[in-house]
Amino acid sequence: MSFHTIVPAGGIGSRLWPLSRAARPKFLLDLGGEGASLLQRTVARLAPFAMSQTVVTGAAHAAAVREQVPTADILVEPSMRGTMPAIALAAELVRRRDPEAVVGSFAADHHIRDERAFGAALGSAIGAAEAGYVATIGIAPDSPSTAYGYIHAGNRLSAVAGIGEASGTGPVFDVREFVEKPDSARAARYLETGEFLWNAGIFVARASVLMEALERYHPEIAGPVRELAARWGDATSRAEAIEAFWKPLPVAVIDRAVAEPLSEDGGVVVVPADMGWSDVGDYESLARLLADAKGPRIAVDSPGSLSLASKPVAVVGIEGAVVVEMDDVVLVTTREAAQKVKEAREEAREAGLGSLL
Amino acid sequence: MSFHTIVPAGGIGSRLWPLSRAARPKFLLDLGGEGASLLQRTVARLAPFAMSQTVVTGAAHAAAVREQVPTADILVEPSMRGTMPAIALAAELVRRRDPEAVVGSFAADHHIRDERAFGAALGSAIGAAEAGYVATIGIAPDSPSTAYGYIHAGNRLSAVAGIGEASGTGPVFDVREFVEKPDSARAARYLETGEFLWNAGIFVARASVLMEALERYHPEIAGPVRELAARWGDATSRAEAIEAFWKPLPVAVIDRAVAEPLSEDGGVVVVPADMGWSDVGDYESLARLLADAKGPRIAVDSPGSLSLASKPVAVVGIEGAVVVEMDDVVLVTTREAAQKVKEAREEAREAGLGSLL
Repeated sequence: MSFHTIVPAGGIGSRLWPLSRAARPKFLLDLGGEGASLLQRTVARLAPFAMSQTVVTGAAHAAAVREQVPTADILVEPSMRGTMPAIALAAELVRRRDPEAVVGSFAADHHIRDERAFGAALGSAIGAAEAGYVATIGIAPDSPSTAYGYIHAGNRLSAVAGIGEASGTGPVFDVREFVEKPDSARAARYLETGEFLWNAGIFVARASVLMEALERYHPEIAGPVRELAARWGDATSRAEAIEAFWKPLPVAVIDRAVAEPLSEDGGVVVVPADMGWSDVGDYESLARLLADAKGPRIAVDSPGSLSLASKPVAVVGIEGAVVVEMDDVVLVTTREAAQKVKEAREEAREAGLGSLL
Repeated sequence: MSFHTIVPAGGIGSRLWPLSRAARPKFLLDLGGEGASLLQRTVARLAPFAMSQTVVTGAAHAAAVREQVPTADILVEPSMRGTMPAIALAAELVRRRDPEAVVGSFAADHHIRDERAFGAALGSAIGAAEAGYVATIGIAPDSPSTAYGYIHAGNRLSAVAGIGEASGTGPVFDVREFVEKPDSARAARYLETGEFLWNAGIFVARASVLMEALERYHPEIAGPVRELAARWGDATSRAEAIEAFWKPLPVAVIDRAVAEPLSEDGGVVVVPADMGWSDVGDYESLARLLADAKGPRIAVDSPGSLSLASKPVAVVGIEGAVVVEMDDVVLVTTREAAQKVKEAREEAREAGLGSLL
């Protein structure tokens, strides 16, 4: 088994502002309070499985990433083009070294509590990838969340393809459809069927399969990425190829560019997993992750509150209050209003408080 | 006219914790953001009228009071016995110097925006006091507040007694009754009648009239206070008299001990005043006082919020949020929950955070 990871580390996490900043994005933060950043935990979680790990990040964060995960290879994105070109470039570089390689892409800024369950699901996904599928790991939903896309699982494939049968690995299902973030009524119906899983953006496939699928659906991306990868080893050629092949690329995300069309052609499978996954996407999510560990020191009529501060915090009469006190700014909101925090960040920008972004 | 003020400066203002502290009580704070504490403003407001001013305070705050209002006399309460013994002692000391003196007692920690209206009302009150009444200034209510006691005004007295007629002074009414803090339905009925005023705890009377009333209703207070005042001038006698006469005194407040029973006997009058009065009693009151001057730097869906902090504050999705960020503690509440802030202070005490009190 030749398995290689690709970890795109890009998003700032603006709904977690002011914890997350442009200069210190979410993936670099120890949001779980475990002495390791989300990126460090991601790389550590994958280490037992991976022959190599590549973190794809922008030039601005390359040094910080290198410092946090010195064992990983750093692939500096020439410029932001979304996850599809970034993953394709990393996958093609792996494929050129090892044509049989399986690659898996994993967000740098998610949190997974149950690493054993993750390992079992990953084992199945790698098995399915070796059999020629693009495999994803779908999160068993515990609420009708409207914050995630859903994966509609179809027939169980294990018996047919002989995969997902190894001890300690999970069953595999074909993917009928990827669906966008639903409204809450639709999300509730999804949950009732038992056939829908959250899309955590995990994709595992042979590098060759991934590149062939990209060639089929988006040759305008696959071609230039192959050209660039072929010239990557030499600094001068690389610089020229970036100008010639990368710069003109359209922005594209892997879900839309490959996973969705390929699922319609029967090429995508999903491994359901109940592994304590969280995208730690906003303060509601962070409050659930930290549970009672970070309640305010003093709380009067304020159940479920979250406090991240350098000094004692008292909350009076606000259910699910969120208080983030930092050196240079204080954010106060509620778990219910957590989605709107990015608007505060925008207001800070408009108010000329650029140093707070 | 021989008018002397008495300014009891005692309460911590625990609903304004953590702005107010045991060591830095509300009256010492510049809550209006005007470069002067509530106590300093009180003394300055009374200065044009007063031949002498006496601030009655505890030993713990005597030095701070002296520093803030060097022109006032400081009367250090031997120990806390409520406003009645404190005011009686100060009044009796004035009376011994000037038997005809009129004294007025005024809270040290209220805010009055319209000093001209205050002056007009005070002029009427002093006139009524010279005519032998205990006069109070009643606040024209602008809402059916349940936070204040009310004064039920009766007949207009000016024409009868020839008082309240001087130019620039207000009309005077007899007081039918002092009523305790009502529930909101009753408060609404009070407002409808137009006959009710808020009790701001202001009392103006000849010192002799006040002492005679106290003698009538509470001889057990009047007697010892007279004995103590007679011995106040000599340090040794004073110390002995404190032990003998002050220590055994019951706790009593002037409203209950004198104003209420005397009003039933027809001895109390009220001057209505619309003078932008605030007791700045809690964060709701403070938010109204500061209006928009202290909104958070960044507010998303958070109208009417108040922010007192050393750095920019962002509030998201909380109407009337109150954020108080200090060196050693952060308080977050809402204007609606403001009354419960004192519970947070108690929780801080129970949590062993004594340094925050």
